[in-house]
Amino acid sequence: MAYLDVGTVDQGVAASHNGARLCTPGKASFSEFGGKGSRHQTHSVIFFEGDPVKRLYELVSGSVMLYKLLPDGRRQVVEMLRPGDIFGLAGGEEYDCTAETLTDSEVHEIDLRQVERSDDLQRTLTKCLTNQMRVLHEHAVLLGRKSAIERVASFLMHLVPNRGGVVCTGPREDGEDSYDLKLHMTRQEIADYLGLTIETVSRVVSDLKRRGVIRVDKADKIHLNRVCGLCQMTGMH
Amino acid sequence: MAYLDVGTVDQGVAASHNGARLCTPGKASFSEFGGKGSRHQTHSVIFFEGDPVKRLYELVSGSVMLYKLLPDGRRQVVEMLRPGDIFGLAGGEEYDCTAETLTDSEVHEIDLRQVERSDDLQRTLTKCLTNQMRVLHEHAVLLGRKSAIERVASFLMHLVPNRGGVVCTGPREDGEDSYDLKLHMTRQEIADYLGLTIETVSRVVSDLKRRGVIRVDKADKIHLNRVCGLCQMTGMH
Repeated sequence: MAYLDVGTVDQGVAASHNGARLCTPGKASFSEFGGKGSRHQTHSVIFFEGDPVKRLYELVSGSVMLYKLLPDGRRQVVEMLRPGDIFGLAGGEEYDCTAETLTDSEVHEIDLRQVERSDDLQRTLTKCLTNQMRVLHEHAVLLGRKSAIERVASFLMHLVPNRGGVVCTGPREDGEDSYDLKLHMTRQEIADYLGLTIETVSRVVSDLKRRGVIRVDKADKIHLNRVCGLCQMTGMH
Repeated sequence: MAYLDVGTVDQGVAASHNGARLCTPGKASFSEFGGKGSRHQTHSVIFFEGDPVKRLYELVSGSVMLYKLLPDGRRQVVEMLRPGDIFGLAGGEEYDCTAETLTDSEVHEIDLRQVERSDDLQRTLTKCLTNQMRVLHEHAVLLGRKSAIERVASFLMHLVPNRGGVVCTGPREDGEDSYDLKLHMTRQEIADYLGLTIETVSRVVSDLKRRGVIRVDKADKIHLNRVCGLCQMTGMH
């Protein structure tokens, strides 16, 4: 997952736990296709919704969110990108959403004309887009059908590598089932991703604390006391 | 749009009004790539979520919805497919959602190994997936940030060709601004697409009737009295 720093945990493993990952970092890199690398600081906008489409991007490291705004300022984060994900294909002449970094990030960018020319790149794109669509489908279920507590629980569970999916490894043999995670998103960004208000996110976090499922060490550091207990709250059981 | 019958209106035009369409019917057809055609009656399941992935499909005519179920039976329709759209790419070994027809439909299916071999087909897929992702992004905004009335208004507006998007043609010169549409979805299917309950959909439809914005001729026939008035309710102004 791009939107967390799991400390010592390997991001590739973390990202593959829900089985929705083929575009592994370093494997389908744009650098092989002549892409240029660039670095962006936290909260830099890479492109705005409505900007003319010129380049296609691959997230190499860090985390990027894609969001759309309604005219009155309501915001929906539509994708939280992980290393290996691509963004900037729009199906039109203008980008359909804004791309903003959540942390210091490295991206590879490639000219759209170059994309057109390369068969190998097209093949890579198909794989990446397919994986991203699967995530978008899951997100639609979360937004359309899950309760506030299920949304927050699902969000936190996605940050725990190898847990919660069909290939969940379960608690450790000694019964230990806690996990430390560091968030790289503000409460507002989480709310805008989960289709909730910031007040609802805070209320649910307090509720999970009171029930003893999590412990909030700092605003961006959350200790999961019982991963299985949290997983039971995702609506997937 | 695939989920309506606009009578005399050309479906290609209807589908292109939001600028999200490159895969025009007949142009990117799988038949050129050796795909086999098949016909499916209304409410036939083409594949179930969890079935092993074998084939890729293109909707040629009719309408198909893709949906996912939560274990307790809650359903979210994640895509309403239009002719020219593709489905069945899953980014894994199992389909991530169920594909069910809403009307009598014709699809072209193609073996996945064949997809792997063809560069032209990969290129077509990239275009189609990009367009479908744009629609998924819009759907996330609808589900995550729009009110019930905005969701229903947005849904109805999508069924009116050449209106409501950036290329909206406006009312006719003589001021006439009504439109007849025929729905091919039940209230429950609409609710499951819009992330609402069936009761909420019915309440909003009654509300729109009371305000004089629409007239319900039959359950599946709705007359829009003022298209501009409805458009003002979509949250996009």
